Amino acid sequence: MSDELLNLRKNIDRLDEEILVRLAERARHAQRVGEIKQGNVYRPEREAQVLRRLGAANPGPLPDLAVQRIFREIMSACLALERPLRVAYLGPAGTFSESASRKHFGSAPNFVPTSTIEEVFRAVEAGNVDYGVVPVENSTEGVVGGTLDLLLENPLQICGEVKLRIHQHLLSKAAGIGALKRLYSHAQSLAQCHEWLNRKLPSLSRVPVASNAEAARLASEDAESCAIAGEAAADLYGLGVLAANIEDDPNNTTCFLVIAHHDADRSGQDKTSLVCSAPNRPGAVHALLEPLAKHGVSMSKLQSRPARGGLWEYVFYMDIEGHRDDPEVAAALKELNERAGFVKVLGSYPGAVI
Amino acid sequence: MSDELLNLRKNIDRLDEEILVRLAERARHAQRVGEIKQGNVYRPEREAQVLRRLGAANPGPLPDLAVQRIFREIMSACLALERPLRVAYLGPAGTFSESASRKHFGSAPNFVPTSTIEEVFRAVEAGNVDYGVVPVENSTEGVVGGTLDLLLENPLQICGEVKLRIHQHLLSKAAGIGALKRLYSHAQSLAQCHEWLNRKLPSLSRVPVASNAEAARLASEDAESCAIAGEAAADLYGLGVLAANIEDDPNNTTCFLVIAHHDADRSGQDKTSLVCSAPNRPGAVHALLEPLAKHGVSMSKLQSRPARGGLWEYVFYMDIEGHRDDPEVAAALKELNERAGFVKVLGSYPGAVI
Repeated sequence: MSDELLNLRKNIDRLDEEILVRLAERARHAQRVGEIKQGNVYRPEREAQVLRRLGAANPGPLPDLAVQRIFREIMSACLALERPLRVAYLGPAGTFSESASRKHFGSAPNFVPTSTIEEVFRAVEAGNVDYGVVPVENSTEGVVGGTLDLLLENPLQICGEVKLRIHQHLLSKAAGIGALKRLYSHAQSLAQCHEWLNRKLPSLSRVPVASNAEAARLASEDAESCAIAGEAAADLYGLGVLAANIEDDPNNTTCFLVIAHHDADRSGQDKTSLVCSAPNRPGAVHALLEPLAKHGVSMSKLQSRPARGGLWEYVFYMDIEGHRDDPEVAAALKELNERAGFVKVLGSYPGAVI
Repeated sequence: MSDELLNLRKNIDRLDEEILVRLAERARHAQRVGEIKQGNVYRPEREAQVLRRLGAANPGPLPDLAVQRIFREIMSACLALERPLRVAYLGPAGTFSESASRKHFGSAPNFVPTSTIEEVFRAVEAGNVDYGVVPVENSTEGVVGGTLDLLLENPLQICGEVKLRIHQHLLSKAAGIGALKRLYSHAQSLAQCHEWLNRKLPSLSRVPVASNAEAARLASEDAESCAIAGEAAADLYGLGVLAANIEDDPNNTTCFLVIAHHDADRSGQDKTSLVCSAPNRPGAVHALLEPLAKHGVSMSKLQSRPARGGLWEYVFYMDIEGHRDDPEVAAALKELNERAGFVKVLGSYPGAVI
């Protein structure tokens, strides 16, 4: 081994030891925090702040995301010193819900798959787990109505959100799109890239298959076929990427909510989810939104949904920017309360960091 | 917030920054290693050494496993600076194979699920991925014969192993085992706890169900039922643990191998897998093992398997302690070569650390 290589390794070893010493000291401090707070140590707003700050302070060359993943794991381990968190998610294991849970909580908690979204809510409510992770907007299913209904009926609060981004590529053995005849993909992926396909490859025959991995395999059999699939499949089947990120929605993400008995304190970059009702008459929704406009509160999502009881015909789910304790949000919510038949704040929480 | 709490947080923030600075420096060194080694930077033996050293140097209070998980993530991120590793595993996503892959490689690589074990081998052989992770001994299926056959036929080498431990508990709402009438569990778990059940609860009626989570749910419906399942299910369904770790094999682990074009260099605590043939006559296997005994080489596994070709009736898979470059192992292998009809070293690699 060359002298330079040996030196580099020695330096890496020294740095690892310096990191280890600091990890241990950090863990001791975290333990003391646990003693003072008597076990209630998971603070979503604090985690978000730490991750944001380290992302901002990151000098490179590691990408911010990599730094944040490492610190997520560090916080996860420190937190588990007290008692491992218990987190329920919509199973089975290996679904996006599990990925989302691990992305948000690191690998230290005990993760519990459930068979329904309702069971996630019940497990948190009964105290059998500390947190629940439920899909709320799913690129394969759209808005997850069941989650919205449960949030409305249930006393639990939203204390965090997780986003998983999903990219789709056009893969083929062919050198260009000119000679392509067949396109294989899962029906959901075909739907997600529908507009792009209509614009660029309107005459291509689209063959829905069981999975995108299967699509890539089929596309690898001849140069007249192509597939829509993720990057991993291109590597595996030796396909070229003819066009990258062809999903119609460039923010093609699956969103999850973290639910608990309490929402989060202010972190400085928060959002608030709420649900409210409006009478079924022209201009009612417009009037409902006026307090937000007046106080300069941005709305990032508005979603109407048929009410299940008889009192109102529709309820509206809204995400607004800011924490319910921020003065302008508090003022807007107060006025909204006076106007709407019904308002329920589902929780204020830090926007997804990682 | 109390002064002490504020101070603790300030200290934690300072430590995080100190860790961040060192992470960045470590990453720069790792980049330089990559330049010198021209991309070929993943060294399984080096990773194992680093993880072992940090486990040994760990002053607490974090458990060694937590420290090793954090450093696995750090090494994973540094390695990905060059180009993310590509790792194929037996899919679908969410199986134990995926957990094993992430446990071994951290979260930075591109993971590619395949539909067969053979496809994992093909993907590595063709260079579409850098590494493959295949089950070799599975608590739900026993030895995975397909993997052994492929290792025999294929030029790929073993460069690492991963172990996932699986615990089973007896769960119930009942306070003791006296009044129990029914036991629910997945058939595999029933098989895994067979001896314990015969000894302790011979008259209990055993009801195989679709999953252990389902078993726990059924057991939560009355106090005459119990279930065999993991700890997570106990939490979720509010069941008590009547007996912990009741699996017959206390080392109830699922083992995986990491395959690549090359095996690993010496790490100081290695094992070597090999396959050899013996003539079908009394004492043949005993004679085959003599060189190992003579040179003080321990054997940790011996597995016979019908040969698929016509030349020998049986082949033997062996794991021995030590690296093929260790003098005593090299000497034993040399003699073994002279005696056996056929010997193939499948690879030397560090034993699983985490």
